[in-house]
Amino acid sequence: MERVDTTISPRYAQIPTFMRLPHDPNPSGRDVVVIGAPYDGGTSYRPGARFGPRAIRNESGLIHGVGIDRGPGTFELIDCVDGGDIDLTPFNMHIAMETAHRHLRDLLQDNAAFLMLGGDHSLTLAALRAVAEQHGPVAVVHLDAHSDTNPAFYGGEFHHGTPFRHGIDEGLIDPARTVQIGIRGHNPRPDSLDYARGKGVRVVTTDEFVETGVAGTHALIQELIGDRPVYVSVDVDVADPAFAPGTGTPAPGGLSSREVLALLRCVGELRPVGFDVMEVSPLYDHAGITSVLATEIGAELLYQYARAHIKGRNDA
Amino acid sequence: MERVDTTISPRYAQIPTFMRLPHDPNPSGRDVVVIGAPYDGGTSYRPGARFGPRAIRNESGLIHGVGIDRGPGTFELIDCVDGGDIDLTPFNMHIAMETAHRHLRDLLQDNAAFLMLGGDHSLTLAALRAVAEQHGPVAVVHLDAHSDTNPAFYGGEFHHGTPFRHGIDEGLIDPARTVQIGIRGHNPRPDSLDYARGKGVRVVTTDEFVETGVAGTHALIQELIGDRPVYVSVDVDVADPAFAPGTGTPAPGGLSSREVLALLRCVGELRPVGFDVMEVSPLYDHAGITSVLATEIGAELLYQYARAHIKGRNDA
Amino acid sequence: MERVDTTISPRYAQIPTFMRLPHDPNPSGRDVVVIGAPYDGGTSYRPGARFGPRAIRNESGLIHGVGIDRGPGTFELIDCVDGGDIDLTPFNMHIAMETAHRHLRDLLQDNAAFLMLGGDHSLTLAALRAVAEQHGPVAVVHLDAHSDTNPAFYGGEFHHGTPFRHGIDEGLIDPARTVQIGIRGHNPRPDSLDYARGKGVRVVTTDEFVETGVAGTHALIQELIGDRPVYVSVDVDVADPAFAPGTGTPAPGGLSSREVLALLRCVGELRPVGFDVMEVSPLYDHAGITSVLATEIGAELLYQYARAHIKGRNDA
Amino acid sequence: MERVDTTISPRYAQIPTFMRLPHDPNPSGRDVVVIGAPYDGGTSYRPGARFGPRAIRNESGLIHGVGIDRGPGTFELIDCVDGGDIDLTPFNMHIAMETAHRHLRDLLQDNAAFLMLGGDHSLTLAALRAVAEQHGPVAVVHLDAHSDTNPAFYGGEFHHGTPFRHGIDEGLIDPARTVQIGIRGHNPRPDSLDYARGKGVRVVTTDEFVETGVAGTHALIQELIGDRPVYVSVDVDVADPAFAPGTGTPAPGGLSSREVLALLRCVGELRPVGFDVMEVSPLYDHAGITSVLATEIGAELLYQYARAHIKGRNDA
Amino acid sequence: MERVDTTISPRYAQIPTFMRLPHDPNPSGRDVVVIGAPYDGGTSYRPGARFGPRAIRNESGLIHGVGIDRGPGTFELIDCVDGGDIDLTPFNMHIAMETAHRHLRDLLQDNAAFLMLGGDHSLTLAALRAVAEQHGPVAVVHLDAHSDTNPAFYGGEFHHGTPFRHGIDEGLIDPARTVQIGIRGHNPRPDSLDYARGKGVRVVTTDEFVETGVAGTHALIQELIGDRPVYVSVDVDVADPAFAPGTGTPAPGGLSSREVLALLRCVGELRPVGFDVMEVSPLYDHAGITSVLATEIGAELLYQYARAHIKGRNDA
Amino acid sequence: MERVDTTISPRYAQIPTFMRLPHDPNPSGRDVVVIGAPYDGGTSYRPGARFGPRAIRNESGLIHGVGIDRGPGTFELIDCVDGGDIDLTPFNMHIAMETAHRHLRDLLQDNAAFLMLGGDHSLTLAALRAVAEQHGPVAVVHLDAHSDTNPAFYGGEFHHGTPFRHGIDEGLIDPARTVQIGIRGHNPRPDSLDYARGKGVRVVTTDEFVETGVAGTHALIQELIGDRPVYVSVDVDVADPAFAPGTGTPAPGGLSSREVLALLRCVGELRPVGFDVMEVSPLYDHAGITSVLATEIGAELLYQYARAHIKGRNDA
Repeated sequence: MERVDTTISPRYAQIPTFMRLPHDPNPSGRDVVVIGAPYDGGTSYRPGARFGPRAIRNESGLIHGVGIDRGPGTFELIDCVDGGDIDLTPFNMHIAMETAHRHLRDLLQDNAAFLMLGGDHSLTLAALRAVAEQHGPVAVVHLDAHSDTNPAFYGGEFHHGTPFRHGIDEGLIDPARTVQIGIRGHNPRPDSLDYARGKGVRVVTTDEFVETGVAGTHALIQELIGDRPVYVSVDVDVADPAFAPGTGTPAPGGLSSREVLALLRCVGELRPVGFDVMEVSPLYDHAGITSVLATEIGAELLYQYARAHIKGRNDA
Repeated sequence: MERVDTTISPRYAQIPTFMRLPHDPNPSGRDVVVIGAPYDGGTSYRPGARFGPRAIRNESGLIHGVGIDRGPGTFELIDCVDGGDIDLTPFNMHIAMETAHRHLRDLLQDNAAFLMLGGDHSLTLAALRAVAEQHGPVAVVHLDAHSDTNPAFYGGEFHHGTPFRHGIDEGLIDPARTVQIGIRGHNPRPDSLDYARGKGVRVVTTDEFVETGVAGTHALIQELIGDRPVYVSVDVDVADPAFAPGTGTPAPGGLSSREVLALLRCVGELRPVGFDVMEVSPLYDHAGITSVLATEIGAELLYQYARAHIKGRNDA
Repeated sequence: MERVDTTISPRYAQIPTFMRLPHDPNPSGRDVVVIGAPYDGGTSYRPGARFGPRAIRNESGLIHGVGIDRGPGTFELIDCVDGGDIDLTPFNMHIAMETAHRHLRDLLQDNAAFLMLGGDHSLTLAALRAVAEQHGPVAVVHLDAHSDTNPAFYGGEFHHGTPFRHGIDEGLIDPARTVQIGIRGHNPRPDSLDYARGKGVRVVTTDEFVETGVAGTHALIQELIGDRPVYVSVDVDVADPAFAPGTGTPAPGGLSSREVLALLRCVGELRPVGFDVMEVSPLYDHAGITSVLATEIGAELLYQYARAHIKGRNDA
Repeated sequence: MERVDTTISPRYAQIPTFMRLPHDPNPSGRDVVVIGAPYDGGTSYRPGARFGPRAIRNESGLIHGVGIDRGPGTFELIDCVDGGDIDLTPFNMHIAMETAHRHLRDLLQDNAAFLMLGGDHSLTLAALRAVAEQHGPVAVVHLDAHSDTNPAFYGGEFHHGTPFRHGIDEGLIDPARTVQIGIRGHNPRPDSLDYARGKGVRVVTTDEFVETGVAGTHALIQELIGDRPVYVSVDVDVADPAFAPGTGTPAPGGLSSREVLALLRCVGELRPVGFDVMEVSPLYDHAGITSVLATEIGAELLYQYARAHIKGRNDA
Repeated sequence: MERVDTTISPRYAQIPTFMRLPHDPNPSGRDVVVIGAPYDGGTSYRPGARFGPRAIRNESGLIHGVGIDRGPGTFELIDCVDGGDIDLTPFNMHIAMETAHRHLRDLLQDNAAFLMLGGDHSLTLAALRAVAEQHGPVAVVHLDAHSDTNPAFYGGEFHHGTPFRHGIDEGLIDPARTVQIGIRGHNPRPDSLDYARGKGVRVVTTDEFVETGVAGTHALIQELIGDRPVYVSVDVDVADPAFAPGTGTPAPGGLSSREVLALLRCVGELRPVGFDVMEVSPLYDHAGITSVLATEIGAELLYQYARAHIKGRNDA
Repeated sequence: MERVDTTISPRYAQIPTFMRLPHDPNPSGRDVVVIGAPYDGGTSYRPGARFGPRAIRNESGLIHGVGIDRGPGTFELIDCVDGGDIDLTPFNMHIAMETAHRHLRDLLQDNAAFLMLGGDHSLTLAALRAVAEQHGPVAVVHLDAHSDTNPAFYGGEFHHGTPFRHGIDEGLIDPARTVQIGIRGHNPRPDSLDYARGKGVRVVTTDEFVETGVAGTHALIQELIGDRPVYVSVDVDVADPAFAPGTGTPAPGGLSSREVLALLRCVGELRPVGFDVMEVSPLYDHAGITSVLATEIGAELLYQYARAHIKGRNDA
C-alpha cells in the first residue's frame, strides 16, 4: 500500500488519511504511526476536539511532505502510516484513558514512535504512560498556553488541565529535563506554575520567550535535554487565537504560527520518541486554519523525526 | 424584584435571564422556576449543549410573554423566576446526574414546577426522578426524533439516548400514559422502539403524525393522559434540521416549527407538573434560530401551565 | 444601456445590480425602478439590514426573469432599471425618513412605480407617503410576522415596528382595504393588533392562514381590495426563520417560502402601484438563503406588475 | 473487512466511509458500490461540490442503516462497500467526464450497481453512459429544482445544467420513461423545459407536485416506469434552501426534506440499477444539514435497492 | 454576594457577569464597577456592538483574575462588581448620550472608578464627561486604529469617530497629556490627525510604534502623563483584524494582541480613574476571539488599577 | 462621472465599485484601470476566488484613498476608474486565459496601467502577456507563499501554480529582475523552486525575509530592479492564514499584514506598469478580513503608482 499519488489524485479526493499516508489499522515495524485520538471528555470550556483528528486529516492533503530547501522528503527517509483512530468512549474518562494507554502501548511494541492527533490534552497522560514503559521517564518539550499541572476538580481526575501533573507524579516525566514554552494568561490560584516549578520544570512564559527569542530557546532546550529520549507535546493554543481559533481554551497574547513552527526545528537535534498535537476543536475553527496549522506542525514533527533518524538518534 | 421593563431596556440589554424574568437563585413559593442545565457529557455525536441555557436566555429577550390573541400575559397569571443554572461537572456522568437530581428535588420542595433548559437529554432522568418523588409515576408527552430508550453503551450508563428507558425501569414514568411523537430515522438494531412499545408506550412516528395531523394527535394525547400529572419533554431535534440545526443528533424529515408549537397547545388541557426543552447546541446554530425556537417552546409551555393553572389543574 | 447578457457574463460577474438590470441613478419614464434602502437605524433587535440591498443584488444574478411555464419574460413586458441606493444616514431617524421620502417622491414623478429593497421596515412609511401623494390612500397587502402598528418607544418615533400605524394615522393607507398576513408570536401588551383591528385592518394570523390556505387567502385579498391602487409590503420575517434566518426579529412558526411565493401570485390580478421587500439582514444569513428568497420575492413582484401591466391595470 | 462496529466506535471516530461501510477501492461482486465524485468544474454559480463526498461521508456516521419500523437492516440484505473516490481533475471538463465514465463502467462490470455521491450534476452524464452500456436506455427518476436540459454555454459542453439533454441526445435515457420532479424557478429563455417536454419527458413542477401529493406522484412514477431499469438521480436542490442550503444553485419554494424522503419510498417497487445524490456544496452548508440530508437520501436509496433486491427486481 | 466559585461552577455555567463578579445593579462604595454599554447607534460601517457587553461577559468566565507570576489576585486587592448594563435607546443618539452620561456620573458619585464595556466608541464622550466632572480635564491613553477626532457627518453629532474631538472641545481632556497609539489606515481628508495634533495630542502611529517598541512607548506615556488622573480607552480595532475581527471598522496592519496587552502594563504606574474597552461587534467575531481579547484587556486594566491602588495612586 | 462622495453616501451604500471609483466599462486615457477577474477554474484546493472581486469591492468602501501622513490623496494625483469585470467562463481554462489576455491587452492600448483583482493566480499569465506586449519582458515583484513555477498537472496547462513558469518560458518576464518574497511550506518534489532559481529568479523565502527585514528587502528589490518596468503581483496567501484566511491554498508561518503592507512601500521608488491582487476566496473569509486586507493592498499599490507617477517614473 502506497501513499496516494498527488500527481493523480486531487488534494481533496479519496478517503482522508494524514498527509495521504497509507491507512494501516494494524501497523507493525513502522518508524512513526500517526494515530487519531477523537475525544473531548476532559475539556473544561469549549468542546469539539472529538472532531480534531478528522479535521486535521481533511486539511492535511494540502501538505506534500517536503519543505522548501529541506532536501529529501520525509517519507523517503522514514516509514510512516496512518493507524486510524483509537475508539474512545465520550462518556467515561477512566475507560477512555485506559483504552488510549493500551492502544498506544501496543503500538510501541511493534513500531518505533507515534504522532497522536488530539483530542483534548488529557490523553497526553496515556501517551506518556506508553512512552515511559518503553523508554523510562522521558524529557518533555511542551508547547502550550497552560502548564496543565492542575489538580483534579469537579470529579475530573484526568481533565485536560492535569496530564503533566500526573506525568510527574507517576514518574513518567523527568521534570528536570522538561521545558514548557508559551505559558501565559490568567490561572487559578494558588498559581498552577508553583507545582511544575517546584518539581524542577523549566517554565518559559510567553514573556520570557519574547525576550529569549527562537534561537535562544533552541539553545535552552538542547542544553536542558541533550540526547535523552524526549516526548514533544504541542497544544495548539500555544499559538495566539488569531492563528489557532479552533481550540478549547484560547489565550490571547500568544505565539505566531511562524514562531511555533520555528521552535520545532530543534527537535531533529534531540532524540524524539513520541509526539502529539492536541486541542484542535474544529467547531471553532473558521476556514480550517487551526487544522492547517496542526497539520503543518505534525508534518514538521515527522520531518524532525526523520532528521534525527538519519543521524541515528532515535534508533534503539 | 421585577421582570426587566421592556419599555425601558432594549431586548439585548442587561444580564440575560429567560424571558427577562427576575433572577432568583434560591426560589421559593413560585409557580414555575426556569432552571438551566448546562451539560453535554451524555452526547454521542455533536457536543455543545453545555452552552444551550446561555444561548436560549440570550435570545429569549425577543419574547414578550403574551401571544397574539391569547388574552392575559403569562406572567400576570403565574409567578415565575429564573433560578440560574445547576452547576454540573462536565467530567463525570454519575456526579452530574446526582447533582441535577438533588437540585431539582430541592426546587420542587419549595415551588410547584420547573422548566429545565438543556443541556443534553440525559438529564431528563434527573427531572423524572424529582417529579416522580412529588407526584408518583407520571404521564409523559415526549417530542423527539429519537425514542431515547436505548441501553447503555461505551460505558455510558446515562447517555442522552437512555433517559426514558431508565425512567420506565425506575418506575418514574407510567408507560401506558406516555406518548412519544416525531420518532423517525435510522436507529440501532434491535430496534430501540421495541423496548418502549413493549412497555406500553404509545409511539407516534413522524409518518404517523403526518397522517394523524395536529388535531388528531391532540385528541390522542388527551385520551391517553387525561388529568394525570404529566411531564412534557421536548427534544428540539423533533423539528427538522432546517428549523433546529443547533442540536446534537439532527434527523432530516422532521416536523416544522409550526407543527411543534401547535402540538404543545393541548398541554393547557392536561395537568402539567414539569417541563424541559433539551438538546440545543448553539455551536451548530446559525443565526440562533434553534435558540429562538427553544425560547418560543419554553414560552408556550409556560403559557400552557398558566392556562392549566387558572383552571385549577395543577394545584396541589 | 442593456441588462447584462447572461449568455456572456457569469452569474457572479460584473458590478451587481438587481437581476442584472441596467444601473440608472436618474431614471425617467420607467415602469418600475428598483431602489435600495440600506438602513437599519430603526431596528430594535438584530441590526444588519443596512447591508440588505447589497446582499440581495449579489444573489439576484441567479435569477433570469422568467419563471417555469410563465410565458414571456418580465423585462420583455415592462421597462425596469436599478436606480441604485438612497443615501440614508445611519445616525438620525428623522433625516433618514425625510431623505427616503424625498427620493421616492421624486422617483414617482418620472416613473410609474418602484420596488424598494430594505433596509428595515421603518422606511415603508416613506414609501407610503410617496405613493399616497400620487394615488391617495392606498390599499395594502402586508406580509409580516408582526403588525408593525406599535407606538413609538425609547424615543424612536419611526422605529421598525411603527410604519403602518403612522401610515394609518397620516391617512396614507385605507385600513379597510388593508390586509396583514402571517402575523404571529409574542407581542407587547396591550396587544398591538388592537390598534390595527380597531382601524379596520383585516389581520390574517398565521393560524388563520393555515386554515384558510393560499387559494382562500387569494380570494380574501381580491374581495377586499379589488381594483384599488395597492401597495405590497413584504417583511421577510413572514417566512419562518428556517427559510429566512437573515432578519432582525425572527419569529418561529412562520410560513414556508413556497407559501410566501404562492401568496404573491394574486398581485397581478390587483392594481399594484409600489412594492417593498424589507428586513433582510445578511449578517444573520447563512448561505445567503434569505437574500435568495428576497430576490425571488422581488422577481415575483416585478412579474406580477408585468401581468397587471399587460391587462392595463396599473396605467395612469 | 467489516463495517465499523458502532457499539465500539463512536460516530465521529475512524477514517470516514459512507455509513461506516468497508473501504474497498477495487470492489468486485458487490450489490452496490458507493463511489465519491469530488468535482465542481461544471458549476455555474457557487462552487464547493468538490468537497461533497467528504462531507457526506463525515456526517454519515450518524446513520445506522435501518429505519424505524423497517424490518431487517439494509446491510443484512445487500452487500455494499465504499469504493472511495474517482480521481477527477478540477481543470478539464472533458478529461473529468472521461475519467468518471471509465471508472463507473469498470465498476459495473464487476458489481451490480453504484450510488454516486457528487460532485456537481454534470457527472450524471458519465453515470448514464455507464449504466446504459449495461442496461440500454434507462428510465430516470430525477428530483431537482432544475431540468438540466440546457444547451452548452461559455464553452462548457458538460456543465451542470446539461446532463439530461446529453443523456437524451446520446440515447442513454428513454425520455418517455423519464420523470423530473420538483422543477421550479426562473430559467433562461427559451424555456429549458421545452426541450425536455419536446422529447417526451414528464415534468412535474413543484406546483404540480403540491397538487398531486406524494401518493399521487408515486402512482405516476410507477405507471410511467413499471419494471424497466431505472436510474434515480437526486439533486439536493430539489429541497428548499431551508433544508439544503449547501448547494450550488439554490431555488426557494422547494420541497421539504420530509417530502423528498417520502418520494423515494416508491423506488423499491421499481427496478433500480443506479443512483446518485449530487450538488452538495459543504462551503454553504451550516451545521452540515445538507450533508445529513444527503446521507439520509443515500441511505434510503440503498434501503430501497435492498427492497427491490429481495423481490428479485434488480437481478440480472 | 460573592464571585461565582470557579471550583464549583464550570466556566460556562450560571448567568454571566464579567469575570463572574457579583451582579450589583446599584453599586456603592466599590473600587471599580464594570458597566455594559450595549449600543451601536454611532457606527458608520459594521453594526453589532450593541451585543458587545453580552459577548464579553459570556467569554469572561474563561479568566480567573490572576495572571502568571503576578502575585495576589485582582479581586483580593480591589472591590469590583458587575453593574449590569446602561439601558441605551438604539434609536436616538442624543438620548443615548445623555442616558450614558447620567448613569456614569451617578456611578462615580458612589464608587471610585468604572470599566465600561462597549458598545461603539461614541459613548466614550459620556465617560469623559462623567470622569471630568470628578477629576477635571484628564490625561488620556487611547489605543485605536483611528484618532476619532473627526467632525460630525450625516447629521451624526456623536458618531463613533468623534468622541475625542468633543472631549477636547468640551475641555474634558487635557490634549497635552493625551497620547493616541496605533493610529493608521486611510482617513478622510483633510487629515483627521491635523485636528488632534493641532490641539497638542501626541499621536503614535502604528509605524512609529513599531520603531519605538513597547518599552519606548511605556516611557513616552509615563513622561507625558506622570501622576495626573488618566482615562484609558481601548478600541479593539487597535489590534489587527487577525486578532480582532469582531469590530466595526477593521484596519489591517495593526498591533498583535501580545503588543496590545504589553502596552497596558504601564497603566499601574499611572493614576487611572476610568477605563473602557469599545467596539466589540460579536456579529463579525468568529470563535469569539475578539471577545476573549476584550475580556483579557479588561482583566489587565482591572489588575493595573489594583497595582495603582496598592501604591495609593488612585485614592482620592 | 465622479467618485461617490463619502460625505453624503455611507460606506455600504450604492452599487459597489473599488474604493467608490466611477464605473467605466470602456475606459480610455486613464492612469490606472481597476479590473475584476472573477475566476477560480485554476484552483487546486479551495475554490471561491470567482467571488473575489465582488467581495473586495464590497469592503473597499471602508478605504478613503489617503493614508495617515501621506500628503495628497491618490485620486488627486492619478486618474483611476473601475472597469468592471472580465467575463470569464468558469468551464474552460483556455477560453478564460484568452479572454483575459484580450481584455487586458485592449485596456493597455488606451490606458497606462491596470490593477487586476482576482480570481485565482493563473490569470496573472494573461496580465504578463498583456504587459509584455507593451513594455517587453518585465521585472516582477511577486509576493506569495508559493513560487507558482510548477509544471501542468491533471491536464491543467494554466492552473494557479503555473503563471510564472509560463511567464518565464514565454519570455514575458526577465527572471534576473524577478524577486519572489514569502515563499514557504511543503511543495511537490522535485522542488518547484529549482525551476525558478535555475532561471535566475531571486527567491526570498519567509525565513530569509525574517532575517533580512523590511528595509533590507526594500534594498534588495531596488538593487535588483532599478528603473526597469515592473509588474507587482500579490497573492494574498503571502500573509499568514491568520491575516488572510480567505484564500485557496493557505500556508501557515507567513507574513503579518503589517509586513505585507510595509513591503509594498518601495514600489513608488520603482517604475510600476501593472499590478494584481489575487487568490481572495470569500467563501473562507470570516468577517471579510482577507477582502479588507486585499483592498488595503490595492489602495497601497495605487498610491505607490501615484508616487511613481509624480516623479515621472511611469510615463511613456
